[in-house]
Amino acid sequence: MKRILLPVLLTALSLSEICFAQTGQVLINSNLAGTVHPNPYNLYGAQFPRIEADGRVTFHFNAPDAKKVQVAIANVAFDMTKGEDGIWTYTSEPQDKGYHNYWMLVDSAIVVDPATNAFIGYSHMCNGFEIPDPDGGFYDLKDVPHGNVIIKNYFSKTISAWRHIYVYTPPGYETNTSTRYPVFYLQHGGGEDERVWFEMGRTNLILDNLIAEGKAKPFIVVMETSAAYKPGEVPPQPRAAGARPATPPDSTQRRRAFSFDTYKDVMLNDMIPFIDANFRTLKNANSRAMAGLSMGTFVTRVVALATPDKFAYLGIFSGGSIAPTDVPDKSKVKLIFMSFGSRERGADGLKDAAETLKKAGINAVSYVSPLTAHEWQSWRRSLYQMAPLLFK
Amino acid sequence: MKRILLPVLLTALSLSEICFAQTGQVLINSNLAGTVHPNPYNLYGAQFPRIEADGRVTFHFNAPDAKKVQVAIANVAFDMTKGEDGIWTYTSEPQDKGYHNYWMLVDSAIVVDPATNAFIGYSHMCNGFEIPDPDGGFYDLKDVPHGNVIIKNYFSKTISAWRHIYVYTPPGYETNTSTRYPVFYLQHGGGEDERVWFEMGRTNLILDNLIAEGKAKPFIVVMETSAAYKPGEVPPQPRAAGARPATPPDSTQRRRAFSFDTYKDVMLNDMIPFIDANFRTLKNANSRAMAGLSMGTFVTRVVALATPDKFAYLGIFSGGSIAPTDVPDKSKVKLIFMSFGSRERGADGLKDAAETLKKAGINAVSYVSPLTAHEWQSWRRSLYQMAPLLFK
Repeated sequence: MKRILLPVLLTALSLSEICFAQTGQVLINSNLAGTVHPNPYNLYGAQFPRIEADGRVTFHFNAPDAKKVQVAIANVAFDMTKGEDGIWTYTSEPQDKGYHNYWMLVDSAIVVDPATNAFIGYSHMCNGFEIPDPDGGFYDLKDVPHGNVIIKNYFSKTISAWRHIYVYTPPGYETNTSTRYPVFYLQHGGGEDERVWFEMGRTNLILDNLIAEGKAKPFIVVMETSAAYKPGEVPPQPRAAGARPATPPDSTQRRRAFSFDTYKDVMLNDMIPFIDANFRTLKNANSRAMAGLSMGTFVTRVVALATPDKFAYLGIFSGGSIAPTDVPDKSKVKLIFMSFGSRERGADGLKDAAETLKKAGINAVSYVSPLTAHEWQSWRRSLYQMAPLLFK
Repeated sequence: MKRILLPVLLTALSLSEICFAQTGQVLINSNLAGTVHPNPYNLYGAQFPRIEADGRVTFHFNAPDAKKVQVAIANVAFDMTKGEDGIWTYTSEPQDKGYHNYWMLVDSAIVVDPATNAFIGYSHMCNGFEIPDPDGGFYDLKDVPHGNVIIKNYFSKTISAWRHIYVYTPPGYETNTSTRYPVFYLQHGGGEDERVWFEMGRTNLILDNLIAEGKAKPFIVVMETSAAYKPGEVPPQPRAAGARPATPPDSTQRRRAFSFDTYKDVMLNDMIPFIDANFRTLKNANSRAMAGLSMGTFVTRVVALATPDKFAYLGIFSGGSIAPTDVPDKSKVKLIFMSFGSRERGADGLKDAAETLKKAGINAVSYVSPLTAHEWQSWRRSLYQMAPLLFK
């Protein structure tokens, strides 16, 4: 296998660059587009999943004693074929550019491939693969000034519990010690958590690159999970199939799970004050943005759209659109950014929705990500499109 | 299940604290010792693995179509029993206190349980569970001043590749902007990477707590993987069983994999200069320490023991001992700290090895972690014992 792969690979990058995935940040490279190469999230030199030159993906899985092995790509299962050596193989159709979750089904049990890095998604751990995008240089790790990604814990009085957050500070934050910065609060989707905008979204690299080109103002980004339950509140029940299915939630529990009222209190009363106390922030609505993807768009509506005194910039990625009647105080909104992947159902009406907002006197921008679905490439591109419009 | 568990749990902590694992940092709590509770790394409210009051662990796994399901705890497989509902169960013997890797074997295929957070270990992703330690408060997340954990990327000229590192800066680092700090370089074991001293080792919390009690000086910690290969060098081959087994490495490859000569160049020529340029460090041997666990002790020998002009403090956790003849310049060594878990083979001779070093005029300290093996509780305790001895 190596004899076939090496000549192709060595034209694109050195061997040292492909053999050890390092937590998903380092090894994505838009120059790999059109080459055959191991998935960059593979661990310890594993050669499979292998990304083919045309964006198909070849999976191998070692399960000599299994009766049936499937690979689920973004929640759709495909049968693998068993070889005489006990290795099951499958080569997919060409995949959309960017990051995709996958997992294995071994005799119907949903499991994670231990040879590939694991990421949160679909309310359980998943594996990931990455199709390089020749136009994906905006999220490559480049030789430009880099901000910091800082992992912090803070205590929320609202729920009497510690919270885990990721904070991006832009290049220069540490040295320009008299400068204060605007803050962008960025929300994940359903079944995800505070890690994803860093690990799959590549938020820090997208902003490093935009700031280096002078296309975006330097600002702080805060990433947190919206999962937040007061003592006595019952969170949604697990759906990860490896775990024992719990009793289905009753309707009260379901409403609670999607209300985000508790998270609104956590964010407004605990998290934003913590950020303002521990980082050099600008503490006014015109210096505060919030955006979310999918379920995170509901969180953005509940928290930020509802509090125009606190947030002037809003982003809605793959979560419908906003109508003028949804906006409590038009005079205070600086921007409503709305996006979809072109393969998503809501994409067609988005431009009209933005026009309607504009006619009502609200600055609105719509964006449709070409040839992508309800997945990370749509959201990386949405961040890249929205960031230059912030805090102007 | 909840009816049985809740009264027990509510005596120890509120429900909100147990239901959502957040990247492994938040929910470990020494107060849980002696209670029945879900493993804190479970995702989305999954109830299993469940930690029993006496330290046994009950595993559930949903695999109705599998012929055989096992759970491997620290690389030893135990048969699970299938119930009529298709759920396989197993309750272990009482486990040692602290963190343990586990994974599942579904019809002999090594896989990861998607309902529990995943961690790197054994050269592949693993699941983890945690047995609370009533004396483990030293790594609890507490209401004390917290340092930052910063994720950085830097480019290594030695190997022409980007590198991914975790840097801990102590409380006060951001505000005491004229203070410079010593640096502790901390190495993982075989089959692990730069994440583990943060995710399982809880380095930041151990140091936050020690510094708050005035027991350790504030210092910076840098965590990186020793995996580093120049263009053309062949890294060790994958052993993760989910992946296709590669051709076994020849003896040249094996020697390279364990030589660490390339990593020595990376660290001395690229990484330490990067740290010294980007953090307010003290740039002398008496302000530099290095320690590693298991395979990381070899890295520590190759890099730090061999360069007394660069490092005055050395730690060897679960990786043999150091003899006076191993020390190139006794006058420059400030400390050699050596430790083992009491269940490890080398534990018995460690005190004598330290005495021999002391007789040769070298300040040596030995530590044996009670009732622990070649696992994380030995290394958390080793860090806790060594940190107060540094930079005095």
